[in-house]
Amino acid sequence: MRSVVVAGAYMTPFGKFLDRNVRSLATEAALGAVKDAALDPKDVEMVAFGNAASGVLTGQEMIRAQLALAGSGIEGVPMLNVENACASASSAFHLAWLSIAADQCEVALAIGAEKMTHEDKKRAFVALARAVDVEELVREHGEAVLTEGAGSLFMDIYAKEAKVLMDRSGATQRDFATAAAKTHFHGSLNPKSQYRQARSVEEVLESRPIAGPLTLLMCSPIGDGSAGLVLCSEEYARKKGMPFVRVLASTIQSGVRDGAGDVVRRAADKAYASAGVSPSDVDVIELHDAASPAEFAILEDLQVAGDAESVVQFIASGETRLGGRLPVNTSGGLVSKGHPIGATGCAQLVELVEQLRGRAQGRQVEGARIAVAENAGGDLGNGPAAAVVTILGA
Amino acid sequence: MRSVVVAGAYMTPFGKFLDRNVRSLATEAALGAVKDAALDPKDVEMVAFGNAASGVLTGQEMIRAQLALAGSGIEGVPMLNVENACASASSAFHLAWLSIAADQCEVALAIGAEKMTHEDKKRAFVALARAVDVEELVREHGEAVLTEGAGSLFMDIYAKEAKVLMDRSGATQRDFATAAAKTHFHGSLNPKSQYRQARSVEEVLESRPIAGPLTLLMCSPIGDGSAGLVLCSEEYARKKGMPFVRVLASTIQSGVRDGAGDVVRRAADKAYASAGVSPSDVDVIELHDAASPAEFAILEDLQVAGDAESVVQFIASGETRLGGRLPVNTSGGLVSKGHPIGATGCAQLVELVEQLRGRAQGRQVEGARIAVAENAGGDLGNGPAAAVVTILGA
Repeated sequence: MRSVVVAGAYMTPFGKFLDRNVRSLATEAALGAVKDAALDPKDVEMVAFGNAASGVLTGQEMIRAQLALAGSGIEGVPMLNVENACASASSAFHLAWLSIAADQCEVALAIGAEKMTHEDKKRAFVALARAVDVEELVREHGEAVLTEGAGSLFMDIYAKEAKVLMDRSGATQRDFATAAAKTHFHGSLNPKSQYRQARSVEEVLESRPIAGPLTLLMCSPIGDGSAGLVLCSEEYARKKGMPFVRVLASTIQSGVRDGAGDVVRRAADKAYASAGVSPSDVDVIELHDAASPAEFAILEDLQVAGDAESVVQFIASGETRLGGRLPVNTSGGLVSKGHPIGATGCAQLVELVEQLRGRAQGRQVEGARIAVAENAGGDLGNGPAAAVVTILGA
Repeated sequence: MRSVVVAGAYMTPFGKFLDRNVRSLATEAALGAVKDAALDPKDVEMVAFGNAASGVLTGQEMIRAQLALAGSGIEGVPMLNVENACASASSAFHLAWLSIAADQCEVALAIGAEKMTHEDKKRAFVALARAVDVEELVREHGEAVLTEGAGSLFMDIYAKEAKVLMDRSGATQRDFATAAAKTHFHGSLNPKSQYRQARSVEEVLESRPIAGPLTLLMCSPIGDGSAGLVLCSEEYARKKGMPFVRVLASTIQSGVRDGAGDVVRRAADKAYASAGVSPSDVDVIELHDAASPAEFAILEDLQVAGDAESVVQFIASGETRLGGRLPVNTSGGLVSKGHPIGATGCAQLVELVEQLRGRAQGRQVEGARIAVAENAGGDLGNGPAAAVVTILGA
């Protein structure tokens, strides 16, 4: 196993771009990351590509990377098209990391790209419904669910999980709004965020109700975007004199149907062990807040602030806000920065690379040395189908 | 880089199974491969899953492995859903190999599964049309192509390639029929083959015309099936006293749009170099004969029988038939064994593992020590989008 580093990172602006396609977004991110690493497109020896929704939204399956990067100058090299629902891009990062760790190449590109906006707005919901057991979905809702979608299927799932969390931890809707307001504040500092407006707790509470305790401003929006990272062997980076951050761990775990729903915790445990890092070492976190209450359960699984009740207190007292002990989702998270699903995992890592290189400008976490990303995808009935935990070190 | 071996291999029968789904096929192959390795499902530490058509045929995207194996006893471990069109399963094999080579686990399962038959027969063609540039396809044929398909799109592509080959090498339609008849003979010896009827050159020539020089018996059929392989570190296999074959190379390359169309040759060159094997060392080959003329161009790219004209002579003189110098597609190939697209790459490797372990019964290549699989997928306008060459050694 060779030491692997990230030497380039770039994300496109996230937002609703009806006039852009996956190729345009992916090419911008790929070339942006390569340029950030001060390399040439021809230096890229392998591509791992995360995309989740093109199959439904444009019909493109099977050879998404080869087409998305056609004509970009990054062509002909090994390309792997990988899906793991909302964890597709961090799964792609895992493969790029693995290729270098296994001495298959010196320079690999991990990229996630997603184009979700469509003139027919329901198409995004139709796509999201493919991240659950579709056979079961059709049994429950009929064949039309495949063309009409199942409404805010995932927000209904998240609302149910939020209620369980409230019972278990004493968290209130206001606690969730506090987390959301914190994250929107962070998003207001990120020029590439889909939403760039700071929001008060009251504004979050008063926004449109979506499902259960969830209001609109607690939910990640539909959007488009792409993010890419250039990974190399540490040896290569040193030889070239490139600045870099280290990949300390990249761990994927899957859910178990009818199992304990502990997939994020299992991934975190393995990642800490593999990185030789303890939860108390962590300086900054990007986590999968597809809806804000998820932040509570994920911080519990990442074991950085004690049990469920302690996490509620930790967030309420401002410790996860910039300037607090452990800033969470400085990028604006999924709720504010946006959640183009197949791009999200790489976008989280772009933010953490910026933090560890001290380039996060108005949202810099001073002295950040250890960063954790948690990215989860799909649903197996009692939790995510896939979870990826990545640990980076300055 | 650790030495990686294959210790278990299994394929389901290939055929048209209207009453089976991806889960049923994948579970049979996964558990069959694990049993063949004399392991327990709980020993599997990682799954790489190839599937290409479920997104279109059943609507299932994103978390295909997690759902296909739910309840199988192989759950909770890292799972990667990978697509590379018809090269999806060999791409999955590549990832399983990489995981072990990079010391991420001791036991990995590579699996490919596909369910293509559907009461609505055109759905399979609709799915296949997703392995080309869909935006371009829609521009040429209109939106309806996404629901109606583009007929035998790939057979039209293969017919065009066959004509180029005829000009270049002097091959005739009868030469293609000779290769097809040879492969159908091999398929008649494989109890799991979709077609198990030996065919004469005349029968192939007289079967229904499909496109250009292609007749029905030169074309791979629509079908369902799954194949799986258990990979381990050589150290683990030795410790357990398991019989095994070695993975000498696993190489992926991508096509270049408007490029030289040399993707298979590039993959072969890299694989030989990585394995330290020369084309003259090869004893048995499984190659991607989605239509029989492909066999000629691929043998040329694999450099086992000289230039294009020599390959025509090589096949005509029976050297690729069982008993010849270099048997090709002893399994029956795609043309006779069948081509459930996301399963094909693993099915080729199952056949080669059987050959190298001397278990191929009526179709055994005596003394086979070095085996090559070539699996290609998708179309970039001037050749496949992806090609994988795998070299196994006894």
